Amino acid sequence: MIEHSLNIRVPYADTDPMGFVHHANYVRYFENGRAELFRAFGLNYKDIEESGIQMPVLSMQVKFLNPAFYDDLLTVKTFIREEPRVRVKFEYETYNQHGLLLNTAEIVLCFMKKETKKACFPPENVRKIISELFQK
Amino acid sequence: MIEHSLNIRVPYADTDPMGFVHHANYVRYFENGRAELFRAFGLNYKDIEESGIQMPVLSMQVKFLNPAFYDDLLTVKTFIREEPRVRVKFEYETYNQHGLLLNTAEIVLCFMKKETKKACFPPENVRKIISELFQK
Amino acid sequence: MIEHSLNIRVPYADTDPMGFVHHANYVRYFENGRAELFRAFGLNYKDIEESGIQMPVLSMQVKFLNPAFYDDLLTVKTFIREEPRVRVKFEYETYNQHGLLLNTAEIVLCFMKKETKKACFPPENVRKIISELFQK
Amino acid sequence: MIEHSLNIRVPYADTDPMGFVHHANYVRYFENGRAELFRAFGLNYKDIEESGIQMPVLSMQVKFLNPAFYDDLLTVKTFIREEPRVRVKFEYETYNQHGLLLNTAEIVLCFMKKETKKACFPPENVRKIISELFQK
Repeated sequence: MIEHSLNIRVPYADTDPMGFVHHANYVRYFENGRAELFRAFGLNYKDIEESGIQMPVLSMQVKFLNPAFYDDLLTVKTFIREEPRVRVKFEYETYNQHGLLLNTAEIVLCFMKKETKKACFPPENVRKIISELFQK
Repeated sequence: MIEHSLNIRVPYADTDPMGFVHHANYVRYFENGRAELFRAFGLNYKDIEESGIQMPVLSMQVKFLNPAFYDDLLTVKTFIREEPRVRVKFEYETYNQHGLLLNTAEIVLCFMKKETKKACFPPENVRKIISELFQK
Repeated sequence: MIEHSLNIRVPYADTDPMGFVHHANYVRYFENGRAELFRAFGLNYKDIEESGIQMPVLSMQVKFLNPAFYDDLLTVKTFIREEPRVRVKFEYETYNQHGLLLNTAEIVLCFMKKETKKACFPPENVRKIISELFQK
Repeated sequence: MIEHSLNIRVPYADTDPMGFVHHANYVRYFENGRAELFRAFGLNYKDIEESGIQMPVLSMQVKFLNPAFYDDLLTVKTFIREEPRVRVKFEYETYNQHGLLLNTAEIVLCFMKKETKKACFPPENVRKIISELFQK
């Protein structure tokens, strides 16, 4: 299993008249979570894209348990529990500064050749790094 | 069943370097879809909120089948297939201008008392309108 | 002078804990305003971009006079008062459903060759349409 | 003069089909910049708001010199050069990881009583902290 934690300070712009973080914004936080997970393990999504591979989102599901508020300091935990092939499933847990679980999520992406827009296996450097992490 | 269609012209700001509508933006389109469904049936989310009831999102799941691009003219179809009680399930289908199905979604909200932040039944005027629609 | 009006229903996601439309969102409304002005006069920003010309924003200034609220029906008036050359200045006035002026803005864009990222004159079809409009 | 620097890693969601950070997003970065400036000097915008004072934006102007790209590590420098009274002018300079100046901005906010929506002087604790900073 690969795991990473990202801290996010809730910006004013992300909250709504209920005072809550608007639910659409967690989708952006999750994207930041997986970019930073990649970076922490020596991968860079920008490099992947420049090598001709894109990673569109195939599905997402989020369960909201508790709201976040302006200025909360969130911890977005990102997990990869299964070794990725054509698809990668990212799982998420978001906590606030009091350790309260705010939501959980599953987001599935795939590797896709930029030119052909066809799904593909991960590029060799990505596959190798991930494979080593899963063998530990 | 209650059904409503909303047209949305994809703004430049909503698209990403892949040229696709960024997946977080559909969550906002779905919110607009249910606001306009409510309006079409004589309800107004703003009035509901001013009467002391808020409607937080409990869960959402989206399956992405095809991307939308800048300037596409989308049709967001919003459905309520089950008579709402404390919870309301909105189902969605998004199509582009060629009739291609882009994604499907289910988003569950609940009615909540603003003061107590406790889940509650819909206010009487909302319940009555919805109930009549489901008896047709 | 070229002028165009666009109606925008304020989405919940665009409002903040003050109940106001968050100021960053007007920047997106203005972008929609100029896209629809272009369309109304037979131009399409998507076509311009596909012809190899992009239009980055060089500067913007906005004066906020009154707030907009959730569910307000805004009218974004977009004006081009000077015949565009390499640069195009869009001027804006936003009104709410009561005719109250909410803000004014000036946003300057330029035409830029996608390949070279150098500023350039508008493509011939754009130049011709605009020129005819200014000669009326 | 009060000065503060905030680092922002550009998220994928904030970039557009040109590959550039969409210009509306800088407005959100600037908001984060002033929140963190406040925090660095012992003030907290959330506390200010909870004490019954809000800070709406009166005007903004931004000059864009160079674009930012996905995954760039930006430095948003926020300055207060004049001692605030009813109004506070925040000035900004955004740099990328190569030290290139990307844009400059001026954003003017005011202090406003939440109840009456009338402009007002800053609350005493805010006034005192700022005043001491300007006397140094």
